[in-house]
Amino acid sequence: MITGLSHVSIVVPNLEAAARELEAKYRLKIGAIKVNEEQGVRMAYVQLSNARIELMEPSGDESPVAKFLQRNPHGGIHHFSLEVDDMVSTKGEIERQGTRLLGDGNQKNVDGEKIAFVHPRDFLGALVELEEHGH
Amino acid sequence: MITGLSHVSIVVPNLEAAARELEAKYRLKIGAIKVNEEQGVRMAYVQLSNARIELMEPSGDESPVAKFLQRNPHGGIHHFSLEVDDMVSTKGEIERQGTRLLGDGNQKNVDGEKIAFVHPRDFLGALVELEEHGH
Repeated sequence: MITGLSHVSIVVPNLEAAARELEAKYRLKIGAIKVNEEQGVRMAYVQLSNARIELMEPSGDESPVAKFLQRNPHGGIHHFSLEVDDMVSTKGEIERQGTRLLGDGNQKNVDGEKIAFVHPRDFLGALVELEEHGH
Repeated sequence: MITGLSHVSIVVPNLEAAARELEAKYRLKIGAIKVNEEQGVRMAYVQLSNARIELMEPSGDESPVAKFLQRNPHGGIHHFSLEVDDMVSTKGEIERQGTRLLGDGNQKNVDGEKIAFVHPRDFLGALVELEEHGH
């Protein structure tokens, strides 16, 4: 089941420039930059008190998020991520309601947590990631 | 200063239908439906453990969010909202860094909290609301 809001994710054309802008304008600092080969992105998080802002930069033209950046060259909100307590049971439960998950359910994020994406047509037009926490 | 992530906001064509879908598919329940005359929306929140999902339905063709729905007829992520501890000092501080705020800084949400919107070009292409909490 869904328990919380994990993060909001923004696609940016340049991760270092984005980090400088957030620090200069809002005193927000990013953490370590990591590479997610599967999603084709370089990324980092801004840790807030209760949740995070994720920044993603496409690592090449083949990256799935490169197309998003072509449509939104200055960047923009790409998805948000909800915490689930158990991916296997949540996946089974929501698929029984007809919800389509993208991928095979065995994806992991850079921190090794299980993730899955819900089809936007099954979440009010929003691209929503599910992320397993607490295991 | 920015302290936390308050909510993610989704524009939907029909608030009641959205509420039914979230409950049927994800067991997420909305709270009371309220009207924000200033923003021209009927809206409700889904309270999660650490933050909220906001749902907004334009209350008429003149609503500022009606255009968003014309571009995204099935709905979609409209903005996200960051908590600030004090609107007056935060507004002053970020405007000194050249950040453009939309509106006069005296807007309030349906709960009477002070809010302001940051120009998307000053937040990585994302429309970001600031919301004063804790006062």
